[in-house]
Amino acid sequence: MSTFFTPGPAALFPTVEAHYAEAFRQNIGSISHRSAAFRKIYQHADEQLRILFGLPKETAVLFTGSATEIWERAIMNTVEHESFHLVNGSFSKKFYDFSKELHKFAHAMHKPFGEGFDASEVEVPEYAELICCTANETSSGVQMKAAEIHKIKKANKDKLMMVDMVSSAPYTNLDFNLVDSAMFSVQKAFGMPAGLGVWLANEKMLEKSERMKLHEGIVGTYHSLPSLWENYKKFETPETPNVMGIYVLGKVAEDFNKIGVDVMRKETDRKAKALYDFADKSANFEIFVENPNHRSATVVVLNCKGLAGDVIKQVQAKSDMILGSGYGKMKETQIRIANFPAVNEEQVQALIATLGSL
Amino acid sequence: MSTFFTPGPAALFPTVEAHYAEAFRQNIGSISHRSAAFRKIYQHADEQLRILFGLPKETAVLFTGSATEIWERAIMNTVEHESFHLVNGSFSKKFYDFSKELHKFAHAMHKPFGEGFDASEVEVPEYAELICCTANETSSGVQMKAAEIHKIKKANKDKLMMVDMVSSAPYTNLDFNLVDSAMFSVQKAFGMPAGLGVWLANEKMLEKSERMKLHEGIVGTYHSLPSLWENYKKFETPETPNVMGIYVLGKVAEDFNKIGVDVMRKETDRKAKALYDFADKSANFEIFVENPNHRSATVVVLNCKGLAGDVIKQVQAKSDMILGSGYGKMKETQIRIANFPAVNEEQVQALIATLGSL
Repeated sequence: MSTFFTPGPAALFPTVEAHYAEAFRQNIGSISHRSAAFRKIYQHADEQLRILFGLPKETAVLFTGSATEIWERAIMNTVEHESFHLVNGSFSKKFYDFSKELHKFAHAMHKPFGEGFDASEVEVPEYAELICCTANETSSGVQMKAAEIHKIKKANKDKLMMVDMVSSAPYTNLDFNLVDSAMFSVQKAFGMPAGLGVWLANEKMLEKSERMKLHEGIVGTYHSLPSLWENYKKFETPETPNVMGIYVLGKVAEDFNKIGVDVMRKETDRKAKALYDFADKSANFEIFVENPNHRSATVVVLNCKGLAGDVIKQVQAKSDMILGSGYGKMKETQIRIANFPAVNEEQVQALIATLGSL
Repeated sequence: MSTFFTPGPAALFPTVEAHYAEAFRQNIGSISHRSAAFRKIYQHADEQLRILFGLPKETAVLFTGSATEIWERAIMNTVEHESFHLVNGSFSKKFYDFSKELHKFAHAMHKPFGEGFDASEVEVPEYAELICCTANETSSGVQMKAAEIHKIKKANKDKLMMVDMVSSAPYTNLDFNLVDSAMFSVQKAFGMPAGLGVWLANEKMLEKSERMKLHEGIVGTYHSLPSLWENYKKFETPETPNVMGIYVLGKVAEDFNKIGVDVMRKETDRKAKALYDFADKSANFEIFVENPNHRSATVVVLNCKGLAGDVIKQVQAKSDMILGSGYGKMKETQIRIANFPAVNEEQVQALIATLGSL
């Protein structure tokens, strides 16, 4: 069986298939989304995610079709005029582009592909309403540490702060008493099949959306924050959601909590260190992100001496391991290695052995 | 094992669980949505749905998170100023409400709950850009026959026509050379777990959206028609979609095509006739929709002499069959029986026997 080191969709967490089988056994594909059975499923996912992320009671757990959707909904619901974006790769740029497409005045601070941001150099424009950070730029393997994100918020307490943690949740240890909102999708570190986005948003986000709506703003319909939140209060969703996905997410979050998120973070750090140490000594690979503080723990990007496509083919042929290719223009020169909880230390060591043998 | 006669989420089609198991076996939860493997899955679903619905080449098959989402996207993308809605129940009203929430001028022709529309009585306002029909009003069990929908379009050729066929696809035999767009979700007659919406839209819909965008209209971001369509041309999606859902939908559509959609429609008619004939003669039940032409073939709504909740409980206790309750205010007096392909003639006869024995 193939081992997926791709950065999303990614390897399934080992318990996922059994959780789906149990969901079928329990008729979870047929139950009404207006039933007590569904409300229990939502409540369970909510409880487990609250533990995992240390959410204060002011923060809601909301579901959408994808994390991409949440970029759009967040802008529509909390930016009346101006947003501010830290852009250093393809995904942070998409978030920025969405704001422009929605006819907002989108400010950005740009960094070259492969570089990261420190709070000390970030100046947030005066009238920006929402600060958009990317905790892990999946395209370039650059992370922004929670501490840096927190500093920006502390220096801009009057503004809302939204963190894209798509490929780093639950590794990024955000303080949700500071950060107003974050989002992720389930096909990355949660190791689930795609089709569900998770939006963590606090009451300040809701209040902003309600204010915009009152002032004749268009905040969307069923997936506006007021609509999502109103339904959330009774553990329901505005539309028929991905019920099985919500069920399995609750179960996976419970599995994570049993291991303990701190244990998982340390394991992620050890695996990342092993991969970076290997590349550092290798003659065939080179760490792409120069600044060690900005190197992602969850998506390791390496420059290849030879053609990246050949490396990917050889690793698959030799060990049935699937690596991610470099993003966009980097396809020919880089490989991306997802270091998510679904791949354990033995698997990472086996990958290192294979890469070392090429 | 329980038999679900609920109108959505509903009974799973008998092949669905095996298709999911095969999807896990093939690592479909882990493959990239930018890979040839995914494009093949999308293409297969596209081919099978084209056969099932008899789609002309001008019509695209697009995927969203839910059918609810498509109400919003259709209005955002094709209504610059005015929409027109046929409203006769909770779901057609939501479609109408969405248009108002998006600050469009939404016209409506209203009928009381339980009544339907004939083309001859429908007058479409002069400046309406999009005509919104509901082929099957899931809340009241009222259908609008394809022939009536076609007549309205023929009388309004300059306007776009969008059909909500959420709980009647693929039963409603629409002519997609006439109708510009239709949508459904997979947890109704396709008998799949929820979490995927299907949007059939032709080039006229796309052109309208492109024109609106050119004139500074806000048509959304990743799920705007131009964005969905651009990706569709290479069998990709803008975001990471519900890949497993798309795979299973292609397989279920293939299963349907093997049976033949005409055979399935006839079976639906026979099962509906059996249910209505039973109610007609029963002392405990009464057909809710008076006009036989407007009675839904896919969602049968019956008035109960006693408390509907008691009927539902007794049927479950006696035969492990799950009925739908009446929608909203009708919860105490009505039951709703989904007559989808997942329940066969024997199961419908068994339900009739149980209802008759109460």
